[in-house]
Amino acid sequence: MGSEAHNTNNIDRSNKGKLSAEKAEYRILTDLSLPRVKAAFVVLVRNSELHALRSSMRYLEDRFNHKYNYPWIFLNDEPFTEEFKNLTCAMTNADVQYGLVPKEHWSYPDWIDQDLAAKRRQMMVDQKILYGGSESYRHMCRYQSGFFMLHPLLDELDYYWRVEPGVKFSCDIDYDPFRLMQERDLKYGFTIALREFRATVPTLWRTTLNFAKAYPQHIYPQTSPDSLFRFVTDDKGEKYNLCHFWSNFEIASLKFMRSEAYQSYFRYLDKAGGFFYERWGDAPVHSLAAAMMLKKSEVHWFYDIGYKHDFFEHCPTEQRWLTNSKCYCDPATSFDFNGGSCTNLFLDVTNRTASSYIVTQPDEEY
Amino acid sequence: MGSEAHNTNNIDRSNKGKLSAEKAEYRILTDLSLPRVKAAFVVLVRNSELHALRSSMRYLEDRFNHKYNYPWIFLNDEPFTEEFKNLTCAMTNADVQYGLVPKEHWSYPDWIDQDLAAKRRQMMVDQKILYGGSESYRHMCRYQSGFFMLHPLLDELDYYWRVEPGVKFSCDIDYDPFRLMQERDLKYGFTIALREFRATVPTLWRTTLNFAKAYPQHIYPQTSPDSLFRFVTDDKGEKYNLCHFWSNFEIASLKFMRSEAYQSYFRYLDKAGGFFYERWGDAPVHSLAAAMMLKKSEVHWFYDIGYKHDFFEHCPTEQRWLTNSKCYCDPATSFDFNGGSCTNLFLDVTNRTASSYIVTQPDEEY
Repeated sequence: MGSEAHNTNNIDRSNKGKLSAEKAEYRILTDLSLPRVKAAFVVLVRNSELHALRSSMRYLEDRFNHKYNYPWIFLNDEPFTEEFKNLTCAMTNADVQYGLVPKEHWSYPDWIDQDLAAKRRQMMVDQKILYGGSESYRHMCRYQSGFFMLHPLLDELDYYWRVEPGVKFSCDIDYDPFRLMQERDLKYGFTIALREFRATVPTLWRTTLNFAKAYPQHIYPQTSPDSLFRFVTDDKGEKYNLCHFWSNFEIASLKFMRSEAYQSYFRYLDKAGGFFYERWGDAPVHSLAAAMMLKKSEVHWFYDIGYKHDFFEHCPTEQRWLTNSKCYCDPATSFDFNGGSCTNLFLDVTNRTASSYIVTQPDEEY
Repeated sequence: MGSEAHNTNNIDRSNKGKLSAEKAEYRILTDLSLPRVKAAFVVLVRNSELHALRSSMRYLEDRFNHKYNYPWIFLNDEPFTEEFKNLTCAMTNADVQYGLVPKEHWSYPDWIDQDLAAKRRQMMVDQKILYGGSESYRHMCRYQSGFFMLHPLLDELDYYWRVEPGVKFSCDIDYDPFRLMQERDLKYGFTIALREFRATVPTLWRTTLNFAKAYPQHIYPQTSPDSLFRFVTDDKGEKYNLCHFWSNFEIASLKFMRSEAYQSYFRYLDKAGGFFYERWGDAPVHSLAAAMMLKKSEVHWFYDIGYKHDFFEHCPTEQRWLTNSKCYCDPATSFDFNGGSCTNLFLDVTNRTASSYIVTQPDEEY
């Protein structure tokens, strides 16, 4: 496999050498004596979601964080209640911090015509589009698209792992995904990829292409063999194919998210008004940015991380993996190879197999 | 509270004394250095339920058994596959055993008119009764009613904890429920109590009363203040109120289940044919036996054990408990005080409060 970074000398070209390189990396990824990466779980959450959040925390603490103790950061557009604070910090031994979303990140910018926005919401209600009438959902999508990475509680961090209330993690994560990001210089990690509802993003693609034309310095050359652009378009840029990484799970680089490239893309979209006049989600926004700005090798499919949100679940299905017994999800329910999934396209674009994204090594020797 | 067994001497009559007695018991219940009680998890399960079972195991191992390592016993009316064995024993450090249900415990006894049984099944299909047409469901209910406790793999055991595929445990169980059974001489423990569909048990009550008349030596006096009989009838025995302990979870005494009293009740029911001509469930059968044969003080509501099966969940709701942070279920979803629940009736009959069933003591000193 040409994409293996370790196959550069004679020793590693043997199968044994490749395994050794994998093992050497894995030793670093599982070394609890190393200082932690500058990273945290980041959760945008309402007081009313307390118990669903506690459930998410239980899963993540059990499967991963009881060993690593990465801090939790909770953000809310309203102040957290004492009950919320007491019952969440009791779920972890790690540091917990509670932050308020600044008003200017959760309100209408002055260039938005609020009457027009209200009319457009009503149109989406009439079309029965999910959250079509919701203002708070739009503020949330906009916040997750361009502002959360600027919150002062994240200032000292290099990576974040986004968590939502009510999600489920079903595999033991024995290694440190944050360290994987750092070691392999990854910028973005996902578990589930799927297609957006077109009615929520009618002008997002055009706006994105206009941005790319206006700011070519921020765009990774689409003609490069390492370009990810094909993940978001099936016709060389004519249309958006609606593929996106499902951003309710993401492990990503804050440096990338705070970069001038990303932030100028967000500001460009924000000026265009689609967060309010349409219902642009943060998932397609993050994904279009990744597909335009990152190299294939900088985006990682966290194949090892069994993850469920709402009705969609990623569960590892490879035989090699199953016998590891790290997961308890049912591989038959995995969304990956469902017709609505974009994971196959991702594998096709990156020219890799599912197996090649397995990081976890078996407990026993080969 | 008059039902507190420890308030028998002057020292224990003080509140401090009561707390000390609770604490002393709790110390025993959490003492990992004691030899384990003779007990196991017992699961009747099909090969096709492998992944749902692995999920149940994950929950129970995480919340309880990784500390106690009680063995798992799996029973099946067909041989387990190698895949099933490999992928289940990998989920626990405890002993695992796989048993086959003997043919004579999973087939029609000679006194059953199979044509009549088939006609009755069709009638239940026409009435759209859940599992009304299923033969295997009936064999399962009959097996769980009267035979599982006779399986040789359980011969050396005093207690069992019944587990089903696809259930969820949402509270840390820091103490040993098997030891609680032994210490308090409990015979039966449940988490959820609810009402049966009357159409599945039209003649079960009459048959049960006939048994009680024929075998008075096995019946605990219904006039005794410690009788549980009122849990199953609202009109002094006229009708079955359909209340039963939901037996997909149970922690119970095998000595009781193998007793002449219980077994003669089962044989009496079996002769009457209702497992096949109607659709008698093992839950009402176990529960009617408990209500007839056991004292109030021998039946325990495992209030501490957050448990979910299908759409019903028991989640501790007491404030004292919530602040313990042992659970991550949402108390608002608990079925206990739903109109369909029989838990309120159980508390009324036993003259106890939910709080009085809390076993877990807080980690910190009071």
